[in-house]
Amino acid sequence: MADLQAPRGTRDFYPEDLRLRSWLFDHFRAVARGFGFEEVDAPVVEHAELFTRKAGEEIVEQLYHFTMHDRHLALRPEMTPSIARMVLARAGGLRLPLRWFTVTQNWRYERMTRGRKREHYQWNMDLWGEPGVAAEAELIAAIFALLRRIGLGDGQVRVQLNNRALLEETLRAGVLATRPDAFAPLCVIIDKLSKIGADAVTQLLADPAGAVGLSPAEARDVVALLGVTSLDDAAAAAPADSRAIADLRRLFELLDAYGVADYVDFDASVVRGLAYYTGVVFEAYDAGKKLRAVCGGGRYDRLLETLGGPSMPAVGFGFGDVVIAELLADQGLLPALARGIDDVVAALGEAQRPAAIRVASRLRAAGRAVELAIGDARPKRIFADADKSGAARVWLVGPEEAARGVVKIRELATGAEREEPLDLSPP
Amino acid sequence: MADLQAPRGTRDFYPEDLRLRSWLFDHFRAVARGFGFEEVDAPVVEHAELFTRKAGEEIVEQLYHFTMHDRHLALRPEMTPSIARMVLARAGGLRLPLRWFTVTQNWRYERMTRGRKREHYQWNMDLWGEPGVAAEAELIAAIFALLRRIGLGDGQVRVQLNNRALLEETLRAGVLATRPDAFAPLCVIIDKLSKIGADAVTQLLADPAGAVGLSPAEARDVVALLGVTSLDDAAAAAPADSRAIADLRRLFELLDAYGVADYVDFDASVVRGLAYYTGVVFEAYDAGKKLRAVCGGGRYDRLLETLGGPSMPAVGFGFGDVVIAELLADQGLLPALARGIDDVVAALGEAQRPAAIRVASRLRAAGRAVELAIGDARPKRIFADADKSGAARVWLVGPEEAARGVVKIRELATGAEREEPLDLSPP
Repeated sequence: MADLQAPRGTRDFYPEDLRLRSWLFDHFRAVARGFGFEEVDAPVVEHAELFTRKAGEEIVEQLYHFTMHDRHLALRPEMTPSIARMVLARAGGLRLPLRWFTVTQNWRYERMTRGRKREHYQWNMDLWGEPGVAAEAELIAAIFALLRRIGLGDGQVRVQLNNRALLEETLRAGVLATRPDAFAPLCVIIDKLSKIGADAVTQLLADPAGAVGLSPAEARDVVALLGVTSLDDAAAAAPADSRAIADLRRLFELLDAYGVADYVDFDASVVRGLAYYTGVVFEAYDAGKKLRAVCGGGRYDRLLETLGGPSMPAVGFGFGDVVIAELLADQGLLPALARGIDDVVAALGEAQRPAAIRVASRLRAAGRAVELAIGDARPKRIFADADKSGAARVWLVGPEEAARGVVKIRELATGAEREEPLDLSPP
Repeated sequence: MADLQAPRGTRDFYPEDLRLRSWLFDHFRAVARGFGFEEVDAPVVEHAELFTRKAGEEIVEQLYHFTMHDRHLALRPEMTPSIARMVLARAGGLRLPLRWFTVTQNWRYERMTRGRKREHYQWNMDLWGEPGVAAEAELIAAIFALLRRIGLGDGQVRVQLNNRALLEETLRAGVLATRPDAFAPLCVIIDKLSKIGADAVTQLLADPAGAVGLSPAEARDVVALLGVTSLDDAAAAAPADSRAIADLRRLFELLDAYGVADYVDFDASVVRGLAYYTGVVFEAYDAGKKLRAVCGGGRYDRLLETLGGPSMPAVGFGFGDVVIAELLADQGLLPALARGIDDVVAALGEAQRPAAIRVASRLRAAGRAVELAIGDARPKRIFADADKSGAARVWLVGPEEAARGVVKIRELATGAEREEPLDLSPP
């Protein structure tokens, strides 16, 4: 007998689940289009090597990969590498800046803990070709536009941001001066700070067999740098001409013009767990920080180069479907979504079915959502079912109505009934 | 270096491709909702055994399957088994009849011939719980509603239909009397008739090592049965009380009530290549039959039983995204779809960026699709780009405008310019 469960960690979407998903996706798309972004898509299966990087990232360790006919393939764990591949394939032929968004399913193979799933959907917005923080500001503004659209008031979600370049310029002048390749794996380890704590991060940074290999004292110094939560404190510690600080100050000015700066915090511990980020990085959390990150993103100016392409600045974010639904549920903000049936049309008896079909066809041609009752239910059951489906009215053709050439119409809200000629039956 | 192509036989969707796909999917969804169907979805990865049947179907032979951590998994080749699994998981708790639709990506691993792809999208509509041909009539009517919506005139696509029960009642009384399990594989072979011809089908049916194993004479008799293209001829050859014939006659009556019977033909050679069909089967072709089938479907009343569930009648169809696009292209009916940008807003100089952001934010809040120019383009380039993107107007904030507290608005269609106060700038 076949195993009749969906694979572990995956989801079936029954009508009520799909309605919620579509509601969320429609908002994702409406915001992205409002910002002038164009939707794109790529295959859910890619060559595995597109995703395999060596910085120790969780997302690579959890790659859903397999070999088939000598090809090493993978279900995409995230969208950015596919987007980069598409940009590279048409590099030179694309009008920059490029504003692309996606709403796609991503996969990761992980032990099933903390209710995490092996697939989730993610909204991505990526802006290619702009080196300045105007790009970051647009994307963070889009995140807030989405939050407002789905009913989350200002301040219920906060964005924490940092600039990897700030950490990098400090470390490259110090402990990383002799370890030029250690910055990306160092960020991957630092990203675990809130999950595993400062001591564990210090140990990982100082692991002689690890990718970073600092001394214990150096590792402690690095962790100490992460405690800064004020941009002024960060600026005081940075060189006077720090480009990273200037970019952050400008970003906050632009976020203020968007009216969202009050909900954005500087936090030196935010570095994100993906190796390819090079500049500003950010993530959003519910105000109480009870849930995992609602979304995260950042600047990845060197990704195209690592794929063998030209240098091209880029910023993007990913916004999943799972945490935001948990947050909406916690806040009592999940929408009540009806089936969306406008009319139910029923024949009372097989002989009246062609007449009922003609009524339904005319209503449908006029743009109405019509459930044509099939089978041989009695009127009482038809009315009860129509009521449950949220329909406004029921159109009945019984033998007596058919003989007189009429259809009986009942308004479900009031119970009022009227008749119309079968030949007309306008919507 | 990473292989930067998408896997062979898969597609990237650049903005212009995605616009066409979304246009088609929106029509799929609008028709299904018009018929009172609810959207559902299931994982693209399932346990492989959900799909592995032993009737020799091409779709099973081309299964995209792999083993990962001792699990035999597959990318779904079609949606129906997943739908059946979902129905079975909630059997008893679902209100019947059940009207479900899906728009999903399906995969098959096949040699790349004739431009066929390894993935395609498919619109499915399935109606569960109705034994009568009113169900088939609804689904066939939905197919024509879609064709009309996307601009294909009546008769540009024709549906060919048959009833497997008609062939089955004839064969079970004859050559299959002693081979009760041979009917499904026999249909799988017959389905190849138009591709490989009558002689090859006869040989396969008479292959002593095959799943059917008729004598050459029996095989020739079966192939001869398939030449009938008139329901009256079929009725003359069937028993007087043939339920299969009565169902077909009733189906044509109902299709007539929907106004589509003139575009539907009886054809005894249509059996479809899936093993699980039990009754009416149908497929649609362009009128010249130059392309592969636009869609296909049928009744599969015993599928739930084969999965260990209760008996439950069901009918469904699948309608792919590839052939219909080829047909629309052949007919010159592919729509011209614009990017959908309403406004372009630009700052002329970094100092004016906050003002431009405020203008863009107000326009977006009013529901307009706004491209905020970033970087430092000159007005000439901004106007040219805006024109290409299809925008109606450009909002410019230069140093001189900012000093006077205004934004300059240019209507791209007429070149007319006006100013509005920066603080107001209504849409």
